[in-house]
Amino acid sequence: MPVPTHRAAFGARVRELRVERGWSQEDFAHRADLDRTYVSGIERGRRNPTLDIIYRLAGTLDVSAADLLAERA
Amino acid sequence: MPVPTHRAAFGARVRELRVERGWSQEDFAHRADLDRTYVSGIERGRRNPTLDIIYRLAGTLDVSAADLLAERA
Repeated sequence: MPVPTHRAAFGARVRELRVERGWSQEDFAHRADLDRTYVSGIERGRRNPTLDIIYRLAGTLDVSAADLLAERA
Repeated sequence: MPVPTHRAAFGARVRELRVERGWSQEDFAHRADLDRTYVSGIERGRRNPTLDIIYRLAGTLDVSAADLLAERA
């Protein structure tokens, strides 16, 4: 199934912020109390995270939830 | 179960934009192709919508998804 554009953009933004922090997917998953395969699926746009998970990811990355969904230039 | 703050804020924002447009919950649900009870649950913070649904709501309201999650002043 093709990945919807908004999921791909969300995943790319999460990955960008994670890499900026120098964290592996495993580091990030541990900090967010999520499974590493789930984080990988999010970054590839294969998962459809809920509002609760979006806020958890944003809190772990120390950005606003809106920042994860922001349109990129 | 108490409603998480981020869900309550999201629901309030959705409701605010819906009312601004002069739409009933039923109007809005029809436009978004969702069930009216689901829309009601979202507005009361009882539902935990996915990224796909957040984008569908935003598209129906003609705002960005980030706008639905923005911190309010």
